[in-house]
Amino acid sequence: MLHFEDFPAGSRYELGGTRVTCEEIMGYARVWDPMPFHLDPEAARRSPFGGLVASGWHTGAMVMGQFVRALLADSACQGSYGMDEVRFLQPVRPGDALNGFAVVEEAEPHPKRPGIGAVRFLVGADNQRGETVYRMRTRLLFARRNLPAASSPAGANPRD
Amino acid sequence: MLHFEDFPAGSRYELGGTRVTCEEIMGYARVWDPMPFHLDPEAARRSPFGGLVASGWHTGAMVMGQFVRALLADSACQGSYGMDEVRFLQPVRPGDALNGFAVVEEAEPHPKRPGIGAVRFLVGADNQRGETVYRMRTRLLFARRNLPAASSPAGANPRD
Repeated sequence: MLHFEDFPAGSRYELGGTRVTCEEIMGYARVWDPMPFHLDPEAARRSPFGGLVASGWHTGAMVMGQFVRALLADSACQGSYGMDEVRFLQPVRPGDALNGFAVVEEAEPHPKRPGIGAVRFLVGADNQRGETVYRMRTRLLFARRNLPAASSPAGANPRD
Repeated sequence: MLHFEDFPAGSRYELGGTRVTCEEIMGYARVWDPMPFHLDPEAARRSPFGGLVASGWHTGAMVMGQFVRALLADSACQGSYGMDEVRFLQPVRPGDALNGFAVVEEAEPHPKRPGIGAVRFLVGADNQRGETVYRMRTRLLFARRNLPAASSPAGANPRD
């Protein structure tokens, strides 16, 4: 299981590749983001995008799924503060690849909780042409190896 | 159809309420964010959260769905630059309500594109106890009423 110490600053991880289909773009949009340019190829053609594009939330969720499966699911990750600078840099269209990556920008022991460290990742995805289509920054908390995690009463917010 | 002029600074919108179920939390996590504390009530009980909690991406997607259905789907929205200061402030647990809201913090004509305006929203959700569990800021582009939208060649990125 990966702990805080396994994510030193400067580390880079390739998260795997996903190819996005038209059906997935429209299926996601029907439930979570029903804008015409995500839902309807004809309306999308008349929109400023000139054709169907994935919801930014869909793109972000696909890359989050890659990040979790590649790195976080078998880690001592204890949650997240959130995200900053989430940017949808290029349209993601049917057939495009999302090749996710994560870079550790900072890794510091938590100032108040001795068993915990905070790791700031730059997370993004490039398409099949090498263009970065999406990026964001997130700070995740991890238990430190060989140090007892700070105890937290049930129901407390571990994101403090 | 709502245009840039329909979102003056200071406007506040209630986006509707959603109650989150255990099955929805686990179903979202299986596809998009398979962390043990989103997937497995027993593993979640042993985690710092003390029980099952919704993925932050799930919470954000639910509120985005409210925002789109309440305001954006029938608007001249032309896309988004992304999000900033996305924060998961309190755990979202099975049975919790998400009462979404959006506040216009800034609305300015686009400096370079005469047919477009940019609107910065604070978007968030309160739970059934009135606690804000989630918030983020996003800048959306809207066509201006009675002004021709700046033409954009097909395939160009309308988010510039």
